[in-house]
Amino acid sequence: MSGPPTAGTRPDEVRRHNRTALLRRLHVGGPCTRAELAAELGLNRSTIKALVDGLADAGVVVEQVSAKRTGAGRPSLLVLPQPRSLWVLAVDVGVEQTTVAAVGFGGEVLGTRGWTLPRGTGSPDDLLAKIGTACRRLAERIGSEPVGVGVSVPGVVRRDGFVHEAPNLHWEGVPVGERLAAALHRPVLVGNDAELGALAEHTRGVATEAADMVFVSVDVGVGGGVISERAALRGSGGYVGELGHMVVRPGGRPCYCGCQGCWETEIGEDALCRALGLPEGSPREAVVGELRALAGEPQAALSRLREFTDWLGLGLINVVNLLGPQLVVLGDLLAALPDAVVDEAAETVRERSLVSRAVGGIRIVASPLGKEAKIIGAAELAFQQALAG
Amino acid sequence: MSGPPTAGTRPDEVRRHNRTALLRRLHVGGPCTRAELAAELGLNRSTIKALVDGLADAGVVVEQVSAKRTGAGRPSLLVLPQPRSLWVLAVDVGVEQTTVAAVGFGGEVLGTRGWTLPRGTGSPDDLLAKIGTACRRLAERIGSEPVGVGVSVPGVVRRDGFVHEAPNLHWEGVPVGERLAAALHRPVLVGNDAELGALAEHTRGVATEAADMVFVSVDVGVGGGVISERAALRGSGGYVGELGHMVVRPGGRPCYCGCQGCWETEIGEDALCRALGLPEGSPREAVVGELRALAGEPQAALSRLREFTDWLGLGLINVVNLLGPQLVVLGDLLAALPDAVVDEAAETVRERSLVSRAVGGIRIVASPLGKEAKIIGAAELAFQQALAG
Repeated sequence: MSGPPTAGTRPDEVRRHNRTALLRRLHVGGPCTRAELAAELGLNRSTIKALVDGLADAGVVVEQVSAKRTGAGRPSLLVLPQPRSLWVLAVDVGVEQTTVAAVGFGGEVLGTRGWTLPRGTGSPDDLLAKIGTACRRLAERIGSEPVGVGVSVPGVVRRDGFVHEAPNLHWEGVPVGERLAAALHRPVLVGNDAELGALAEHTRGVATEAADMVFVSVDVGVGGGVISERAALRGSGGYVGELGHMVVRPGGRPCYCGCQGCWETEIGEDALCRALGLPEGSPREAVVGELRALAGEPQAALSRLREFTDWLGLGLINVVNLLGPQLVVLGDLLAALPDAVVDEAAETVRERSLVSRAVGGIRIVASPLGKEAKIIGAAELAFQQALAG
Repeated sequence: MSGPPTAGTRPDEVRRHNRTALLRRLHVGGPCTRAELAAELGLNRSTIKALVDGLADAGVVVEQVSAKRTGAGRPSLLVLPQPRSLWVLAVDVGVEQTTVAAVGFGGEVLGTRGWTLPRGTGSPDDLLAKIGTACRRLAERIGSEPVGVGVSVPGVVRRDGFVHEAPNLHWEGVPVGERLAAALHRPVLVGNDAELGALAEHTRGVATEAADMVFVSVDVGVGGGVISERAALRGSGGYVGELGHMVVRPGGRPCYCGCQGCWETEIGEDALCRALGLPEGSPREAVVGELRALAGEPQAALSRLREFTDWLGLGLINVVNLLGPQLVVLGDLLAALPDAVVDEAAETVRERSLVSRAVGGIRIVASPLGKEAKIIGAAELAFQQALAG
């Protein structure tokens, strides 16, 4: 049953709505002329002028005479976002490495800090304190306060920033959002790393045109993020789906989750190490190095990664049959796979997935953002809220 | 990137929005007083009066003095939906049986027609002609025209009513929506049977309170419908997910879809027949009869359906881990399973699904609507559009 109807829209709500749309256009699409803004947003030029003037007064944009000329009249003014006027902190809590970045309005990275910790060492307390310090240092260097904070965590994250479980960090029940918000005196939004990878690819990557897409990534574990009709898909309690814990090989290797033969045990980082003949838990550079070495040798790549490719393809058939995306983006460690492996898994899906056949073929591609996707997604999560405010 | 902003809302749009909300409230929730309508919809009493007066003039509702008294003042008038004032045709194309029903505003069934055909016999042309005739007969008996037509098909259905594939009907590429619309001169909406089962359970069944739910049903094949944040989940091109074609047993029985060991080959009707010691393709009554006989014998049920129960539980773990619903409803033939089997599969999910543990336990229940779910869903699909118009 649909809820109660909304009341009529008030003029100040329309103004705010239009301002948010304009800010998002500039943030995602970059500088453009007032005429382009009017055309793209479907607003008249006087409305655009009033909005841009307001933002220019606040120092959020500046206007310049454009070099482009489109007619005989005066050249349209070019509107440029000012990165330092509105900026956010983005945090990527990785299994081995944590990165904190200051990201400006328009997407420019204003500064970063990062550090490496051996896997499974470091308590949440220590890490959150370290993140807090790094965030404050970045703010001091920029000389102003961020408008928001976005955090990526490789775990089961609730919409309110509570991390139920982050097995590869050995975290359980950590209220990350609440703790960082108290330390930074700023609104903090927390997302699952693959969910934020999906947001990054949908906002600034290869999936900007895909209304329905799935992002599958490997960073030790296997995660997934789903965009459905241009919005993030979330289940009850705000938890996103855990694609890595789909059982694909009943009776297979035991997984920490309580099942056997999860997709994670078959295509996670350990499985990739085994396929490549590396010890499980090898440093990331070693794994990526082996994969890069196979890039120019498709036959060798397919033969060494035969079983891995089969499990990748099988899991993707399931993902596509259940969720029906038009595009699947393979992220993080999967973005380093040799093309021959990605192409073969994609071919398997096109041949054997009923849903792929129905929609006329689903595209499966490696992420162009690679391991940056998570921190870009964390920044975009913060900007989504900040630009709407 | 978000699209262009909407313009301000016009007064006539607000009125239409409010009328739709009021019609949906009466259709789904049944008769209630003007005061209840005002409270539930968050509208003032004069707005409700104007809307109800308009609907009463059109014959869509009548008002009666309510027996209920809530205060010292005049009793509030009770508003009753008039079933024959606004009615729809609902069609359930089943593998063995086709049913056509006339369903009135408020949900009352005004008449039905149905027939049985041996599996796989009958061309789409013949069946669509027969459905057209049955629809016209029902309209003649009621003496007015339906405001819409909803059709349930057990297959891969696109949003525009094109059936890409309905393997158990042996249909391929049938424009069901277009053909019936031409025959009936009425708007026709077509949905996948499990998608409509989900809609029925969410509107009138056990899932009215569940914002995120999954409906899994067996009618020969295995289908699934997903409601996410109170809306139907659809993939690209408007195709819904095909839960039955998730591979759960690699190397298992070949499925017509091109994979082996699909969930459908392990828990579809044939698998149930094998588990019960019946020949594959046994009549539906025989299968249901065997299941009913096991209802009072939990130990016998679990032992005869041991393997079936394991595959049911395993597939449900995957569905829950990928989609994170709060409730899973088992429909159609699965609704006839002995309680012991459903309870054991539910227990497996609660123990072994990471996502179930995160949200504090997911409920898995048999559908109370049973095999009626599909035709109720088809009617509700037609009403969704008709009441919004």
